[in-house]
Amino acid sequence: MSRGPTLRPPPRRERYAVILAGGSGTRFWPRSRRRVPKQLLRVLGRRSLLQATADRLRGLVPSEHVLVVTHRDHAAGVRRQLPELPHANVLVEPVGRNTAPCLALAALEVERRTAGAVLVSVPADHAIADAGEFRATLLEALTRAAHEPVVVAVGIRPTAAETGYGYIRLGGHRGRRAYRVRAFVEKPTQARARRFVASGEYLWNSGIFACQAGALLGLLDRFLPEVTGPLREAARAPRRTRHAALARAYVRLPSVSIDYGVMEKAPDTVVVAGAFGWSDVGSWAALADIAGAADGRTPVIPVDAPGHAVFGSGRLVALVGVQDLIVVDTADALLVCHRGRTQEVRRVVEEIGRRGLVEYL
Amino acid sequence: MSRGPTLRPPPRRERYAVILAGGSGTRFWPRSRRRVPKQLLRVLGRRSLLQATADRLRGLVPSEHVLVVTHRDHAAGVRRQLPELPHANVLVEPVGRNTAPCLALAALEVERRTAGAVLVSVPADHAIADAGEFRATLLEALTRAAHEPVVVAVGIRPTAAETGYGYIRLGGHRGRRAYRVRAFVEKPTQARARRFVASGEYLWNSGIFACQAGALLGLLDRFLPEVTGPLREAARAPRRTRHAALARAYVRLPSVSIDYGVMEKAPDTVVVAGAFGWSDVGSWAALADIAGAADGRTPVIPVDAPGHAVFGSGRLVALVGVQDLIVVDTADALLVCHRGRTQEVRRVVEEIGRRGLVEYL
Repeated sequence: MSRGPTLRPPPRRERYAVILAGGSGTRFWPRSRRRVPKQLLRVLGRRSLLQATADRLRGLVPSEHVLVVTHRDHAAGVRRQLPELPHANVLVEPVGRNTAPCLALAALEVERRTAGAVLVSVPADHAIADAGEFRATLLEALTRAAHEPVVVAVGIRPTAAETGYGYIRLGGHRGRRAYRVRAFVEKPTQARARRFVASGEYLWNSGIFACQAGALLGLLDRFLPEVTGPLREAARAPRRTRHAALARAYVRLPSVSIDYGVMEKAPDTVVVAGAFGWSDVGSWAALADIAGAADGRTPVIPVDAPGHAVFGSGRLVALVGVQDLIVVDTADALLVCHRGRTQEVRRVVEEIGRRGLVEYL
Repeated sequence: MSRGPTLRPPPRRERYAVILAGGSGTRFWPRSRRRVPKQLLRVLGRRSLLQATADRLRGLVPSEHVLVVTHRDHAAGVRRQLPELPHANVLVEPVGRNTAPCLALAALEVERRTAGAVLVSVPADHAIADAGEFRATLLEALTRAAHEPVVVAVGIRPTAAETGYGYIRLGGHRGRRAYRVRAFVEKPTQARARRFVASGEYLWNSGIFACQAGALLGLLDRFLPEVTGPLREAARAPRRTRHAALARAYVRLPSVSIDYGVMEKAPDTVVVAGAFGWSDVGSWAALADIAGAADGRTPVIPVDAPGHAVFGSGRLVALVGVQDLIVVDTADALLVCHRGRTQEVRRVVEEIGRRGLVEYL
């Protein structure tokens, strides 16, 4: 692989951050509920995942340039958790349509506020161990995106043969830790994941990327005009009817991810490799790996119970003769799950719905 | 084996029942606590084990002849649960000293009230499926005990090679389903238990027995004078100081079971074989075997969770990818235990004590 060209000093572009807080994940039931999705939960320490995400951006992007895109049901919760954010910085989707519409909405807003700005898009519900290294990596991605009108993804040096993540196959070097993207690869089998990691040619796809707002809108117009068309139209509506226009536009939008709809098709995409202790916290097991066995506020009495993790509500939890159990204890519902089966918590939520036990959703 | 002599019509003797409610079992933690021992719990249906025991004696013994022996801490609970019982019928032990002192105290009271009476002693915390057959068996034991001054034990036809029960080895026939007792046998190993059951010569020792109060006192005087001596002395104290005299007597008593202290040594003991769906409900697993998987008031959502049993408090319980788990959910504490390890719940209680978390005891 040959080294890419050295970067010239980048043009001065204002920076924005877009926090994607649209998730309504069911994998953290019983802590996550319809009204309290994963990103609003305090599952790691005293700050919610959303709050920790906003905290982490401090110093990188001024807080008046932090936008949060979220679902109507969660807008009040987002504003309550981030009181420092201007009211207008919470962009409210009337219905969820996956991440491409989120980013189109945010890019339109950024471009409207500051022509030529560069943005970094960050999921609200990830865990990051090293915030300094995170900011350094995002700064590099923003700088690179400010320099050229391409998508600059952030990849993660894999530390295990994870089958729950998408991968990015690396092309030629574009700098010390930047590469051309050869391909985005869907979640692999265990055997493929092992080969990916052994080869050194793959990074995990973190879902974080930087791009000039104008360039991103150009890609969206090119690959997903059925998304940008209705949104641009709604943005032109007079201020007092814009809310209703947006609602009308949204119901017409397809549900499509930015990865599938744009990233995988965009030319000249670049990836910056980061190593900042990243996890998408995709399940109770992933959270247990990060958080450890106990939450610090729940007394736990294990009697021959190796591999356990307890996320409690303060009640005492005793475990006897059980292995690799995850226990999640809330005021009205309790989950006992084998550590290797936490992906199936969705099935509990489905069954609750089938039985019509809506108070537990 | 030769048939024993046919019974002549028994002498008219008044019948008493003594319910032994002294237990402070820790094996039903977190439902059982210091203040609420197993016998006061509603673990099977809407009546506590104690109430079900009293209900079951109806028709066999008039309620004014039902005595309950219990620990000072539980006397109020016993009286609350059995309001039909005369106040004086709850015999209160100042400290627990196992079953021999309980029976000495009760036998003294019965003999004081009605000379020549016959009593049947029944643990308060057993489960019995067939109350009619239970009463028929106890009637036979009472009748036989009324007839001759010996202990008449009630044995249970074994339905499995249980290692958690004591066994009674049968001697010669003494009637249709009565036998001489050849030996009381301690809890056996699995292999011995299998041989016992296969031989047809053994019954489970239910802990239930009938005896004339006077005859029982005679045996106690003979084998445990260190128990009856202080109690007889306390009984002679003037009424207003009897309570204090009893407390003084109790601290001097040895802690000894009626089985070890008397039954195993008494001559000519007889056993009547019953088959009334008996369990000593010695653990959560035993209770689960009787009660089934769900308690009827707790919504349970199992996703690949064979062999589970949930004793809930109304909160929803979801189980994912776990086998043979028993979950006991109370207001302030939660137990998750493998079905084969429920004997070790004691260890949880010990650990709670060690950590000084007294509010959970």
